[in-house]
Amino acid sequence: MFQRLVNPESIAVIGASHNENKIGYVVLKNLRSSNYRGKVYPVNPKGGEILGYRVYRSIDEIPEVDLSVITLPAERTVAIFEDVAKKSGFIIPIAGGFGETGEKGREMEKKIKQIAHRYGARIIGPNTVGVYFPSTGVNTTLTVPEKSRFPGDGDIAFITQSGALGLLTMDEFSMYGVGFSYFVNLGNRIDVDENELLDYFGSDDKSKAVVMYIESFKDGRKFMDTAKRVSKKKGIVILKAGRTEKGGKAASLHTGSLGGSDAVADGAFRQCGVIRAYDEIELIDYGRALAHGKPIYGKNIAVVTTAGGVGVVSTDYIESEVKGIGMKMAELSVETKRRIKKEIVPFASVENPVDMTAQASDDDYDGVISALNEDSNVDAILVYALFQTPMISEKLVDILTYWAKRGKPMVVGSIGSEFSLKMMRKFEENGVPIYPSIERAVKALRVLYDRGEILSRAPWQRT
Amino acid sequence: MFQRLVNPESIAVIGASHNENKIGYVVLKNLRSSNYRGKVYPVNPKGGEILGYRVYRSIDEIPEVDLSVITLPAERTVAIFEDVAKKSGFIIPIAGGFGETGEKGREMEKKIKQIAHRYGARIIGPNTVGVYFPSTGVNTTLTVPEKSRFPGDGDIAFITQSGALGLLTMDEFSMYGVGFSYFVNLGNRIDVDENELLDYFGSDDKSKAVVMYIESFKDGRKFMDTAKRVSKKKGIVILKAGRTEKGGKAASLHTGSLGGSDAVADGAFRQCGVIRAYDEIELIDYGRALAHGKPIYGKNIAVVTTAGGVGVVSTDYIESEVKGIGMKMAELSVETKRRIKKEIVPFASVENPVDMTAQASDDDYDGVISALNEDSNVDAILVYALFQTPMISEKLVDILTYWAKRGKPMVVGSIGSEFSLKMMRKFEENGVPIYPSIERAVKALRVLYDRGEILSRAPWQRT
Repeated sequence: MFQRLVNPESIAVIGASHNENKIGYVVLKNLRSSNYRGKVYPVNPKGGEILGYRVYRSIDEIPEVDLSVITLPAERTVAIFEDVAKKSGFIIPIAGGFGETGEKGREMEKKIKQIAHRYGARIIGPNTVGVYFPSTGVNTTLTVPEKSRFPGDGDIAFITQSGALGLLTMDEFSMYGVGFSYFVNLGNRIDVDENELLDYFGSDDKSKAVVMYIESFKDGRKFMDTAKRVSKKKGIVILKAGRTEKGGKAASLHTGSLGGSDAVADGAFRQCGVIRAYDEIELIDYGRALAHGKPIYGKNIAVVTTAGGVGVVSTDYIESEVKGIGMKMAELSVETKRRIKKEIVPFASVENPVDMTAQASDDDYDGVISALNEDSNVDAILVYALFQTPMISEKLVDILTYWAKRGKPMVVGSIGSEFSLKMMRKFEENGVPIYPSIERAVKALRVLYDRGEILSRAPWQRT
Repeated sequence: MFQRLVNPESIAVIGASHNENKIGYVVLKNLRSSNYRGKVYPVNPKGGEILGYRVYRSIDEIPEVDLSVITLPAERTVAIFEDVAKKSGFIIPIAGGFGETGEKGREMEKKIKQIAHRYGARIIGPNTVGVYFPSTGVNTTLTVPEKSRFPGDGDIAFITQSGALGLLTMDEFSMYGVGFSYFVNLGNRIDVDENELLDYFGSDDKSKAVVMYIESFKDGRKFMDTAKRVSKKKGIVILKAGRTEKGGKAASLHTGSLGGSDAVADGAFRQCGVIRAYDEIELIDYGRALAHGKPIYGKNIAVVTTAGGVGVVSTDYIESEVKGIGMKMAELSVETKRRIKKEIVPFASVENPVDMTAQASDDDYDGVISALNEDSNVDAILVYALFQTPMISEKLVDILTYWAKRGKPMVVGSIGSEFSLKMMRKFEENGVPIYPSIERAVKALRVLYDRGEILSRAPWQRT
């Protein structure tokens, strides 16, 4: 259904601009820098050439296209809409100034929706930054590549009502090498909505998890039905913004949408297997956990560290119900303790958290994790990859990748600056999400446990 | 009292090594790369030269020194201790294998403590990575400079029972350009303790806040007296690890210390004006807020953003008591709304959060913050510096720095990758702490409010 959107053979940019500060220029620049390989038709009455693309003087001059991006202001967007709709499979009107501003804007929305319907075109937006699909290079967004990163290809599908929040967040996570399969900004959502997209990404092989920033649901019942179905196959994380009264009011000014009660949302999410995030970091962190991590089917966690304090703080966060995730530190078996003590790291603490101390080597990690994997008292392992000490090398990335893929459910945390960041990117390349703080690592454990609970409800889906 | 420690004219390294993987080598390397300018006396029976330093064959050959670092294992440390104590003001025995391992280790600790006492030398540790003082280049730690950063000079004093947690955390924050005045790892703390150091850093001009990672207090009553006094002058943040039963057990294996009830600690902290952190990120984030931010004396926050969703999520976090800080979104005055609407940013939302949209320029920030500063309904401002849109430039750093210094209490948040990180470092250089996520920015607000509450209790100290 969305084939022409995600993999368009041709894109028209209506309102293409020669002025580098205009959206009609930035969109072309982003298409160029994202290596979109299809045909591009910039349209501007002045003609000429922009960034090497030939500019067409009117829509009449271009052929039918899969996707049209309109970078003109709201009223000019409406004026030109029928000409565009005649020739387009999908249309992204970027301008704000529609329904979010009042009655007049809502009238304009109604009008373009009718036109699109008449010609069988679909609309994303308006009041949107549009879409970004790394694998096909489709990029209609307006952030400036000199000042932000576009993430690479990945397996997290990102549906958002706030375009800016989405772009900023992808910029942030691309620093760790996190990739995305699809990014769609719903904007005022007069046509294509989160339910259709969730359904589509839910059955798409590229996407291993779906994350959503939502201020209000288009159709709550339909969402629940869709989420119930999709969550059996892959993880869904939702940041439901506007959960407080004032937040809801802010949301209504933002995208003109009205949210419901937060308690109701909470219950509904639980019912349909959706995991809840409360901010931009949790949203993507949880999506990464679900896309790559194994569900955890028990509460007993073993912690491996070379920094004693990191083990203590992790223990507190794992055990505490108040400031923490309310899980348990595993009681290691006698055999596990014997192996750790005698054969592996004689100087280490053989209790859980296993503190291998700053003298630990890459191979010590291997030995300890191997022992923990054979201990039936351990449901999952939280391991900190700390590269600052002399005996730890890049080899640790391979060792932990091996265990993350072959062994029990495992979460990897790390703390550090440039060198650690470089190693974190290597983990990401290997499909092992890395969490750059104690709290974030521990919360990923909880999400994998919640995922286990969700899958336990549908045993035929349990892998 | 600690003058010879923080600014030593001479440092002996007992157990200096030619082997690059040994601590006795790394310590010399770190002294070298931290630009310590005093005299260095490596001691090793083999003699020769290490990293350009002449090596002395025995302690007898070197003169009296301000500081001696012993990089030998525990038993050899004890054997040589008297020779070292005779010649040293301060001694840092790095080795583990003392009190944290049991009765025999405690006996060894007793022995070296008696020797030190006899000769008037003071001990930091044992079982410690020692100290790092950026302004004098004193660095006895064992992380490898190729794989971690040492932070620059700054105004946060850091006292920690866990050396590794401290070093990792400083590495992490140095990526944002965060500096520290002093770093001391207490280790097993048989002599110099947190109370003496808190007292010293409390009256030191360089340190504007003191942050502490503590698993147990040496003397709770004395700590409270000291903290009560120091917290009138500067902020104190404590990460009290081992707050759960299992965490406490892990702590006792880590530094051989026993913590008390967490509820008791909580009450005591409140009484003596200490702000509590729960992990390594909060610890330093809160310290940065207290070192540079102004106390907030009211609950009404104005939020300024160019990304609507960021404003909505911030509103939720500010207003919510459950997942949030339980403060209030300010009701902007009619005059403020008029100024924002008519004179400053006609397209923006004039409600709070003020959403200037992606079309905003640097000067729009200036205008909006100027208006908010004149609104008596606003107690503090949370502003997001989002650099990804076309009209925002480096100039924004100067504008926000101006208002952070001259205006109402303000917290600056940002989200992004390399370019944003570069701008964050500029903010740090200007003495404006930056918080790289919504949650972290909002929590900084709460800490400044808590600081206001603490200062309100002692009105004669209120600035």
